[in-house]
Amino acid sequence: MSEPIDLLISARWVIPVDAGNTVLPRHSVAVRDGRIVDIVPTDIARERFHAHTEKQLPDHALLPGLINLHTHAAMTLMRGIADDLPLMAWLQTAIWPTEAKHISSAFVRDGTLLAAAEMLRGGITTCNEMYFHPAAAAEAFDLMGMRSVIGITTIDFPTPYAASADEYLSKGLAARDAWRGHPLLRFTLAPHAPYTVSDTTFQRIVSLANELDLPIHIHIHETAQEIEDSLKQYGERPLERLARLGVVDSQLIGVHAVHLTPAEIQTLARHGAAIAHCPTSNMKLASGIAPVAAALNHGVTVGLGTDGAASNNRLDIFQEMRMAALLAKVSTLDAAAVPAATALRMATLDGARALGMENEIGSLESGKWADLCAVDLSPFETQPCFDPVSHLVYCAGREHVSDVWIAGQARVLGKQVLQKADSELLGLARVWQNKLGSRFD
Amino acid sequence: MSEPIDLLISARWVIPVDAGNTVLPRHSVAVRDGRIVDIVPTDIARERFHAHTEKQLPDHALLPGLINLHTHAAMTLMRGIADDLPLMAWLQTAIWPTEAKHISSAFVRDGTLLAAAEMLRGGITTCNEMYFHPAAAAEAFDLMGMRSVIGITTIDFPTPYAASADEYLSKGLAARDAWRGHPLLRFTLAPHAPYTVSDTTFQRIVSLANELDLPIHIHIHETAQEIEDSLKQYGERPLERLARLGVVDSQLIGVHAVHLTPAEIQTLARHGAAIAHCPTSNMKLASGIAPVAAALNHGVTVGLGTDGAASNNRLDIFQEMRMAALLAKVSTLDAAAVPAATALRMATLDGARALGMENEIGSLESGKWADLCAVDLSPFETQPCFDPVSHLVYCAGREHVSDVWIAGQARVLGKQVLQKADSELLGLARVWQNKLGSRFD
Repeated sequence: MSEPIDLLISARWVIPVDAGNTVLPRHSVAVRDGRIVDIVPTDIARERFHAHTEKQLPDHALLPGLINLHTHAAMTLMRGIADDLPLMAWLQTAIWPTEAKHISSAFVRDGTLLAAAEMLRGGITTCNEMYFHPAAAAEAFDLMGMRSVIGITTIDFPTPYAASADEYLSKGLAARDAWRGHPLLRFTLAPHAPYTVSDTTFQRIVSLANELDLPIHIHIHETAQEIEDSLKQYGERPLERLARLGVVDSQLIGVHAVHLTPAEIQTLARHGAAIAHCPTSNMKLASGIAPVAAALNHGVTVGLGTDGAASNNRLDIFQEMRMAALLAKVSTLDAAAVPAATALRMATLDGARALGMENEIGSLESGKWADLCAVDLSPFETQPCFDPVSHLVYCAGREHVSDVWIAGQARVLGKQVLQKADSELLGLARVWQNKLGSRFD
Repeated sequence: MSEPIDLLISARWVIPVDAGNTVLPRHSVAVRDGRIVDIVPTDIARERFHAHTEKQLPDHALLPGLINLHTHAAMTLMRGIADDLPLMAWLQTAIWPTEAKHISSAFVRDGTLLAAAEMLRGGITTCNEMYFHPAAAAEAFDLMGMRSVIGITTIDFPTPYAASADEYLSKGLAARDAWRGHPLLRFTLAPHAPYTVSDTTFQRIVSLANELDLPIHIHIHETAQEIEDSLKQYGERPLERLARLGVVDSQLIGVHAVHLTPAEIQTLARHGAAIAHCPTSNMKLASGIAPVAAALNHGVTVGLGTDGAASNNRLDIFQEMRMAALLAKVSTLDAAAVPAATALRMATLDGARALGMENEIGSLESGKWADLCAVDLSPFETQPCFDPVSHLVYCAGREHVSDVWIAGQARVLGKQVLQKADSELLGLARVWQNKLGSRFD
């Protein structure tokens, strides 16, 4: 008697992202009630299971859905609005004035819808989000059926969104309360950065993190300037200050971490803190090269993030995998640094670990959610294929993602995002482009 | 009375790659006898011209076909066969043994067919090729209708292809004679590298270059080791030696040029020599970061190359544009280094200049060949679009190339390569994959 299941996906290669970097040729993933129940050779799966839906992926790699460990989703609406500028000039002349004029609940909702569609079609099933109006972001991720961890963003200066740190926190916590129990949405506390948040606010955030068991998502050591400024203002480097305030622990997701001393890497490792590495953004803003190979060697958990579309300008974790591998090699002059399997792990299981979700997502294992991404390796650009893991990192791209599932539910089939029509997404982009203004018309 | 022409292509934006980095909204390119005859606003074009064929590109950027200034096309058949190894280990344990066993005229022909299809579909209309069996490469590029400049590769050690430098040269020159007068094929002299070519052979190549008016295409200063070895063997750095031998002049295309002193950059500039910058390959093999921003500031012509698919693993000039811009920024800590328009120029006009073909291709101008690439910026991943040049470099990818023309002849329409069926290309890849052997079956 065969066992009834909801979904059986049979692929040329199943890549579970396990400790041995296994590649399982001609295997099938069995899904029931949104979770993986078994991974077995396809021949056996056909006898063992009776599936409501079957999916054949004859030329595909099937892997865990990718995890974007740092993004500002709504910034898709400012994609390419200013380039080739250093971080502070870029923020001060382009991003902040545009935000001051345009950011609203509607902006965040529409921008997040566009971002979620882009991420889903690119194989990203979970993102770690930080921006204004988290309630609007939550609404958009819910509509798109995307797993996301939404930052309760907090800054110690007023914006049209909130007048004080207290108001940022109370609005964010209210959004968390409103979406409590949602199967796909979670929250973090997201103090923006050491240079925009006061000691008092950090202390409040640390108590909230302990009380509510929430991760802390924060930009740290992105630029050398930020460190110099902190030394002037506080007499300490930002990480030193955060450690003193109790922010550096296993709940910490430190974004960028470009400028780290060996002692700081050891501090992060000792506390079990994680890094969200955003190589493309760090390159584009000329922030520097994060010492990722050294961090990994010390046992720090390092996931991958795209940052916002205004500083990348793609929400593309395939690009970040390739970039992380290539940048680590050239910066250490060691071609063996961050091999393909490590880049793939950073984009999946290590991202899950950073979020405290490694028992639920990030690899293909019985009992975990069926968050899955299928990559079609049949086009001639990806042939021949001697090693599908090498291809995922060095050769294929998000354009080869064919199908995506979250908790066993199809979100992309045949490269089409299911939750929202392309025409509707394009309409939203057009509205905001007209409001923000184009240079070439 | 309207003027009869062969082809009128009307695009949302025409990007000619001119001195002012112009973007022409709603313009049309008129083509007759394979050449551009005019570029005018679409409204005017409709009155002025009567075209045999019209093409509407309502959401597209139309730009010069991209130029891949350094590749080993047939190495597509070894795509991803070995990764995460430093250059010499990669060559000695993986590439050279595979080449010794498998390289033949058939290997080069089939691998070059696959590479040409990949490059064409990615918007590359011209490549600067260097590998064994140039006659077989020429045959493949001719079949695919791709413009290419084929290296008469020369090495001072025997391979199954040729026993001596003389035989490499005579075979290559015979191929050049056989294809003389072909509208799309040209040749260079391609001594492989300073460490594989003797002084005597360089002297012969310099006389041939002068006599036949051929460019010299050579790897230089790719690794620090190569420079150390040269200092030991010759008491000079490779570029010093090449300058002494008369190789460094305006016909030189020096590939990689990762390790350059300021004086060497000035030497290249003074002689009008060009660099083929291959950022992805330099990163993957951990060779180092080429000082591209400095070279550009000194007036050196710098084009972009993919290198072979075994060290990249994509023949994708969109990727190299993005990488060149990002790597220049992070390595100089200047976000303004290599802005988008410069990266696009490197991938087009500067590549043409390096090949001595800047009066024929590389920009859209009346009288030049109609080598064109259309990029569809309508998908939601590329929306909104404030500046199409920014999008070409930072946001779009080769997957957005819709149509490609070479000398006014369509080579790709609606993402389909016209000269050869996908199934036939996949068949070739499969045959060689089976011969070379796969790791995961």
